[in-house]
Amino acid sequence: MPDFEGVVPAIITPMFADGEINEEGFRAVMEDNIQAGVHGFWTAGGTGESVLLTDDENHRIARAAVDQNQGRTKIIMHVGAQTTVRAARNAEHAARAGADAVCAVPPFFVRPGDGGIVDYYKTVAEAADLPLFVYNLPQATGVNITPDLMRQLQDNVPHLTGLKHSAPDINDVYNFAQMGLRVFTGMGRMMLPALTIGAAGCVDGPPCLAPELWVAIWEAYNARDLDRAEEAQAKASEVMDFLIDLGYIGALKTAVGERLGIETGDPRPPNLGATPEQKVAAREAVHRLGLAKVAKAA
Amino acid sequence: MPDFEGVVPAIITPMFADGEINEEGFRAVMEDNIQAGVHGFWTAGGTGESVLLTDDENHRIARAAVDQNQGRTKIIMHVGAQTTVRAARNAEHAARAGADAVCAVPPFFVRPGDGGIVDYYKTVAEAADLPLFVYNLPQATGVNITPDLMRQLQDNVPHLTGLKHSAPDINDVYNFAQMGLRVFTGMGRMMLPALTIGAAGCVDGPPCLAPELWVAIWEAYNARDLDRAEEAQAKASEVMDFLIDLGYIGALKTAVGERLGIETGDPRPPNLGATPEQKVAAREAVHRLGLAKVAKAA
Amino acid sequence: MPDFEGVVPAIITPMFADGEINEEGFRAVMEDNIQAGVHGFWTAGGTGESVLLTDDENHRIARAAVDQNQGRTKIIMHVGAQTTVRAARNAEHAARAGADAVCAVPPFFVRPGDGGIVDYYKTVAEAADLPLFVYNLPQATGVNITPDLMRQLQDNVPHLTGLKHSAPDINDVYNFAQMGLRVFTGMGRMMLPALTIGAAGCVDGPPCLAPELWVAIWEAYNARDLDRAEEAQAKASEVMDFLIDLGYIGALKTAVGERLGIETGDPRPPNLGATPEQKVAAREAVHRLGLAKVAKAA
Amino acid sequence: MPDFEGVVPAIITPMFADGEINEEGFRAVMEDNIQAGVHGFWTAGGTGESVLLTDDENHRIARAAVDQNQGRTKIIMHVGAQTTVRAARNAEHAARAGADAVCAVPPFFVRPGDGGIVDYYKTVAEAADLPLFVYNLPQATGVNITPDLMRQLQDNVPHLTGLKHSAPDINDVYNFAQMGLRVFTGMGRMMLPALTIGAAGCVDGPPCLAPELWVAIWEAYNARDLDRAEEAQAKASEVMDFLIDLGYIGALKTAVGERLGIETGDPRPPNLGATPEQKVAAREAVHRLGLAKVAKAA
Repeated sequence: MPDFEGVVPAIITPMFADGEINEEGFRAVMEDNIQAGVHGFWTAGGTGESVLLTDDENHRIARAAVDQNQGRTKIIMHVGAQTTVRAARNAEHAARAGADAVCAVPPFFVRPGDGGIVDYYKTVAEAADLPLFVYNLPQATGVNITPDLMRQLQDNVPHLTGLKHSAPDINDVYNFAQMGLRVFTGMGRMMLPALTIGAAGCVDGPPCLAPELWVAIWEAYNARDLDRAEEAQAKASEVMDFLIDLGYIGALKTAVGERLGIETGDPRPPNLGATPEQKVAAREAVHRLGLAKVAKAA
Repeated sequence: MPDFEGVVPAIITPMFADGEINEEGFRAVMEDNIQAGVHGFWTAGGTGESVLLTDDENHRIARAAVDQNQGRTKIIMHVGAQTTVRAARNAEHAARAGADAVCAVPPFFVRPGDGGIVDYYKTVAEAADLPLFVYNLPQATGVNITPDLMRQLQDNVPHLTGLKHSAPDINDVYNFAQMGLRVFTGMGRMMLPALTIGAAGCVDGPPCLAPELWVAIWEAYNARDLDRAEEAQAKASEVMDFLIDLGYIGALKTAVGERLGIETGDPRPPNLGATPEQKVAAREAVHRLGLAKVAKAA
Repeated sequence: MPDFEGVVPAIITPMFADGEINEEGFRAVMEDNIQAGVHGFWTAGGTGESVLLTDDENHRIARAAVDQNQGRTKIIMHVGAQTTVRAARNAEHAARAGADAVCAVPPFFVRPGDGGIVDYYKTVAEAADLPLFVYNLPQATGVNITPDLMRQLQDNVPHLTGLKHSAPDINDVYNFAQMGLRVFTGMGRMMLPALTIGAAGCVDGPPCLAPELWVAIWEAYNARDLDRAEEAQAKASEVMDFLIDLGYIGALKTAVGERLGIETGDPRPPNLGATPEQKVAAREAVHRLGLAKVAKAA
Repeated sequence: MPDFEGVVPAIITPMFADGEINEEGFRAVMEDNIQAGVHGFWTAGGTGESVLLTDDENHRIARAAVDQNQGRTKIIMHVGAQTTVRAARNAEHAARAGADAVCAVPPFFVRPGDGGIVDYYKTVAEAADLPLFVYNLPQATGVNITPDLMRQLQDNVPHLTGLKHSAPDINDVYNFAQMGLRVFTGMGRMMLPALTIGAAGCVDGPPCLAPELWVAIWEAYNARDLDRAEEAQAKASEVMDFLIDLGYIGALKTAVGERLGIETGDPRPPNLGATPEQKVAAREAVHRLGLAKVAKAA
């Protein structure tokens, strides 16, 4: 099995109308993505509505992901939570369930400073005894993991393997790669740029809607075919553009449902779902961009 | 019973060494504060480790607070949570338990925009059918509730009564008071300043350590005695200064424990507890500043 | 002559339609303000369009201010500039012209770090050999002068006397006062609040439109008359409110012109002047609030 | 002559020890860079100490740059200044001097809002009647030029041709390129990444120290040779890394002086010059990395 690299969709968590998890739908998305050639999953992460899930839901997703995967790709399970104890418990469960690695946002709401962040990741990593990925998402957490702080983590948390870098400064993709970390850009429109300066791949939500487009970037890049890589990136970015225009998470859930003919539901409040107009537009885009795997409903 | 005003301690949540809530200790802090003349409690708020508590713990605190209070002051119960459903459930429980009002931080981690924030508060307020206080704490939540957004809340959430304003810009204390809201400054060193421009009182953690000092500000202010009010504020601010120097939340829990001779425990990780040196310094300050209600242990 | 304290208008720089300075108008504003009892002037500061003035204009204002003042109040001359050499030259000139103190924004655009800021202020202060006031205006400069940095300035710049604090966090008014500095709040609506926690007074633009209102706050505060002080602050704040609603600097120049029947001009671009509608509203407010010293033009 | 594209050094402004401009040194840097194959110059920009220069110095640099260039590359002259009038005068002069385009930072210190920024650029562009490049440098100016604001500029300023994007969010390189603008990344370590998503080239200071390294990126990229492009970017980034480690602007001036054996001086205060130790390290790096054009002084 290859290393942690390539296209790693931050997979959505499909839900039924009543807010319950649609596990069969979740497995269908995974299977679709695996068939398209992805290299792993960032499971129950930001796009998967991570910290809005209960711990039981987190555990259920871990078990389903490992079971559906059957070792074909890498399962990187998100275990971050409001308290260190809960995050560690999630981490322990992920390990028992058979995940390949764990990932976690740093503490949010509570801001314990660098020392507190190091303590938190150390406890989480030891509970899992698995490779650890940091999830750098300052827009949500209010904490930017800088190279300085990352160096403290490297010094104190031997399980630290890499990160998803969703902060806007792409210089840090380069800086973190120089530090020997596996860096996944968290911005789907930046996969090719990030690869050229040392990134290991891309973790983002839109690749779970159109995995074939991001896999094409990866393959062209590895074939050293710059023309094809740029063309693939442009097509992938077009998918992201429409999702962002339509409010992102609600549109993404709608679009994945449309692609596969499954029920994905709305994101859990306080996240806003797509409006009826946004849903229509999202569904149309799926067909217009050739992303549908099932025929359009009449 | 008076209106929502005056000194409203953001009470700590005492815990045992194993992290369990020390309910008896919680009641002891309340009783001490009530005897000192406080006008209400901000319960399970930021200083009370709000979003690090389980929903069961939140409910237990609501019941204990109402029961210990026996109608003597106003119980403003914090019900904010990661999902709207959980916050609404907490709100409903608070109402059933007999709280006088509910308060909540806006959505954090998830950033649903103004519309999403309005939806969230509307749902929470309707679930409680009680006066609603917004908790403006941008340092933790990443969202600043501006006068513009507050106006949207006023237009859409009839239960909206006021807020705890812990954001640094004191201009908004004035602005919110002009809008007819009950504004509590969330900064204990700013109680007197805030009162002079229309605030209704102060909600902060340190008043649960030294309620008599903040009550003295309130009384002198209402007696129109500027000399005495300034003197009282200076003494109260001195208490805050030492707590901030010692890292705040850990030092505050230690100091309240020392004042009353009860077990208060460390804050729940990822919050950092006070170091042993900080604990010694916090205990000494309690005695030096004359805040102890029990004799110093030999 | 008293110390640096009280009401210190950040005086506008009246201009003719062609952008030239209306020195006679400037002197008229000063005289009006002195007659109303102000205690000093913050000259060619932010409201005076400081860094948009040429060095010659800066020098001319220094000479006019000192000459018009005739020792009746304190002239605090703004000398900050894009380069240290220019700021020091302005400082030297201000001293020669007879100013009582100099003030300066920290370096802006260029961000030389704490060491560079200390060097800059040291050079400026030594060039003037006068009391130095720091101008903390992070909205414009991008640099917040924290208590930590201020301590470095105290350690290295013996001329440091105080500051105008226009940053939003009023906690630092308290912190700086505790450090023995003369703190002027830069927010006219916060004069009374700031006085109650140790501020020396208020420096802001609106007091040059309605000096009598801020002088009333100062006098009531010093008479320990809390009712009257709050009433005076409320009236003063009402003036600020309308200026802020009308875009501030353009409205302020228009309103001062209307009060005194002088030509004040528009602020220098890229500052935006008031629109025609805003000018009409500003003039009406001057009369409605009883601020006019000359009769309304027919 | 080609379009605006490729490697466009943000050239330093060499100075003598007394702060006077070393025009001969400036011309020597230009000539060195032209010989190495650069495609233009960003003249008197941020690295050129732009807003710290007098208008006379700005004009002198414009004339020298055009004269030395002799039409071989594109001269993009920075004309931004504290007032719109001064910026427009600089723009007019740049046009008369024969520059190919003008560029300008948005208003800084003064924050006139979107409308004021549009007015400013409109005035500047019309004064020059040349292609206009926006300089997006929020770290210095405090204003981020977003795609929304850029759209307003496109609608109102027909001369708008492109921008130097030095803001950290590389997504906007893609967004601006989609809007039909010539986008130069302002981050030398991001030239290759930016090219893969539509950038026209790179404008940064370090290319004036090692133009051959950035030209190599450009040539390999255009030859569609991904291996060679990545290798060239890595070498170029190594140069940037040492400059950043050594405090950037002071080290860059020292290093360019060492490369060419010319006097470049320290940056003008309040910019901090390199320390003696940093200068030694910068000079050693020039030789270690093979950047010297003249032999090392004994």
